[in-house]
Amino acid sequence: VTLAELDTPAVVIDVDILDRNLRRMSDYCRAHHLNLRPHTKTHKIPELAKLQIASGACGITVAKLGEADVMAAAGLEDICIVYPLVGDAKWRRLLALAERARISVALDSEPLARQIAWRAIARGVTVGVRAEFDTGFGRCGMPIGERSVEAAARIRDLPGLRWEGISLYPGHITATRAERGPLIERENETLARLFTMLDARGIPYPVVSGGNTPAAFLSHLCTGVNEIRPGTYIFNDNNTVSAESAEYADCAATVLATVVSTSVAGHAIIDAGSKTLSSDRLRRGEGYGHVLEHPGITLGGLSEEHGHLELPPGTTLTVGDRLRIVPNHVCTCMNLHDRVWGVQRDTVVEEWRVAARGQVR
Amino acid sequence: VTLAELDTPAVVIDVDILDRNLRRMSDYCRAHHLNLRPHTKTHKIPELAKLQIASGACGITVAKLGEADVMAAAGLEDICIVYPLVGDAKWRRLLALAERARISVALDSEPLARQIAWRAIARGVTVGVRAEFDTGFGRCGMPIGERSVEAAARIRDLPGLRWEGISLYPGHITATRAERGPLIERENETLARLFTMLDARGIPYPVVSGGNTPAAFLSHLCTGVNEIRPGTYIFNDNNTVSAESAEYADCAATVLATVVSTSVAGHAIIDAGSKTLSSDRLRRGEGYGHVLEHPGITLGGLSEEHGHLELPPGTTLTVGDRLRIVPNHVCTCMNLHDRVWGVQRDTVVEEWRVAARGQVR
Repeated sequence: VTLAELDTPAVVIDVDILDRNLRRMSDYCRAHHLNLRPHTKTHKIPELAKLQIASGACGITVAKLGEADVMAAAGLEDICIVYPLVGDAKWRRLLALAERARISVALDSEPLARQIAWRAIARGVTVGVRAEFDTGFGRCGMPIGERSVEAAARIRDLPGLRWEGISLYPGHITATRAERGPLIERENETLARLFTMLDARGIPYPVVSGGNTPAAFLSHLCTGVNEIRPGTYIFNDNNTVSAESAEYADCAATVLATVVSTSVAGHAIIDAGSKTLSSDRLRRGEGYGHVLEHPGITLGGLSEEHGHLELPPGTTLTVGDRLRIVPNHVCTCMNLHDRVWGVQRDTVVEEWRVAARGQVR
Repeated sequence: VTLAELDTPAVVIDVDILDRNLRRMSDYCRAHHLNLRPHTKTHKIPELAKLQIASGACGITVAKLGEADVMAAAGLEDICIVYPLVGDAKWRRLLALAERARISVALDSEPLARQIAWRAIARGVTVGVRAEFDTGFGRCGMPIGERSVEAAARIRDLPGLRWEGISLYPGHITATRAERGPLIERENETLARLFTMLDARGIPYPVVSGGNTPAAFLSHLCTGVNEIRPGTYIFNDNNTVSAESAEYADCAATVLATVVSTSVAGHAIIDAGSKTLSSDRLRRGEGYGHVLEHPGITLGGLSEEHGHLELPPGTTLTVGDRLRIVPNHVCTCMNLHDRVWGVQRDTVVEEWRVAARGQVR
């Protein structure tokens, strides 16, 4: 099957670019003695998670228990769930999972840790635990201070849990390249305060886990960080490019779309709307995706099944024309598709099931 | 099972509200002699499509061939695909489908109609056809004029196709109630021009299909329209409410979510982010959803798996608290879920598979 024979819309993944992206990140992490624990929420495909392990990752990261279930069932053995798991149903599932794989969780609440700990003891399993601190993003994570360091000390002492260290989400580092230097300096000051307090209390932190894709290749500048959890780097997307962390030539995942209407002058409609691309905005900039073949065309709006192209003067498209769109946010895009295709130049070489798609719980 | 026992996040559908919404629309259509052909892209659940037929709908509308396949396989017999179907793969599927059910398509291109027509003749099946005109939304639809009316005449004459009439998408009428009057007046002037031209050419239009949810209950004011295709009315959502077409008490579908972190002062995080609610913005207004129990709380931001609540002074939430969120756009929200639950007050009475979810092709 060639690209031309694939029905649209379809997510296609250039396996050569994918391979290069994986290698680039592994090489970087090896050079800087960083453990790589890729976030598989980006692709949700066990086969790709295994490729990441094969290329040097120490384990994987997931956001949801359901994703961990799928990945463990596929043979992934070391899984960190960086999401606060709340409620009896989830704790029971977590412990069942911990019997099958090496599982750790990041959490930001001592009562939550206790709930998991006493159930782990009762069941005779051990769950790894990382205390999550907020270094400025303001989402999850305990605020850095005496009280949270006390809480971390008590979490470390809980039986049933395996203390692994600390977890951070430096999400505020998703700035442009120029802005990142000062942000990392401030992050380092924050981290230094935390390390001083942990040291004073004698709390070890064998793992200091941080990192995301836009700033991943600056992780060696983050003092103390020894593990990173980038996700998007495997594919890259319009956001990574707009954050000056990749070029369009590094974008492995595109949506192959067909022009389905040119009835309205100056416009064209493609068969990829918000149910194909997701309606995520670009973090910096306008539009809902980058048209690879025609950078001058703006994907200015999305209906559910319609992508609204605005054509610059002199550009015409014909019904049946095919375009490849780099999505703004590849993680939410992948989550909309049950299957995606691997291509090498114009040949379809793989078909992957997005097995952990829609695992909302 | 009760609502309290359901693991989160979960889409729950209040069956009493659903029932009321269905009845209200049927009664309206009956009173005004309008055919109701609900757009099932909103729910993508064959069982609900059948409920719509049982409550008086003449058939259903879908956006994708894959949705039509699922609906036909479940026994739905009269399906209109209001989307330009482009490419040999799709035409072959369309004709296979036309052997199993009464199928019609809306299209805005004569060459497209020809492609379908000659394949239909070769296969010995008939496909219903409606010519789509643009009355101002500027998405699909031929511009109203002599050339497009000529094209409609030629489409009507094609063998293999069953001429049904015309299709419109008055998407620009999704304004507030006060703004809708003048918009409908302008729409009527546009339609009158079209009807005059069609009459002059002797082109009949037994079906004049229009309508969407926000303006659905004003459809009797649209001269000539005799079929409407609302989708969202079955559930309603934050957009319908902000368009003053429903109240929150009319919103049948909500996302049941749990507070998972309160570490950051003034904020709380719920386990429903863009992969649960979709990142669709509100057409008018701010925020990513309406918190049913706490209208004063703003759902100000979404990460993929985190909903960022901004708490007004004096409001506190605790980890484990459960909230129900009315999504901005229920159609894109439903599309993210494999299963949803029907509830009656606090009791779970149904579990539905979203069988046509993710049918992107």
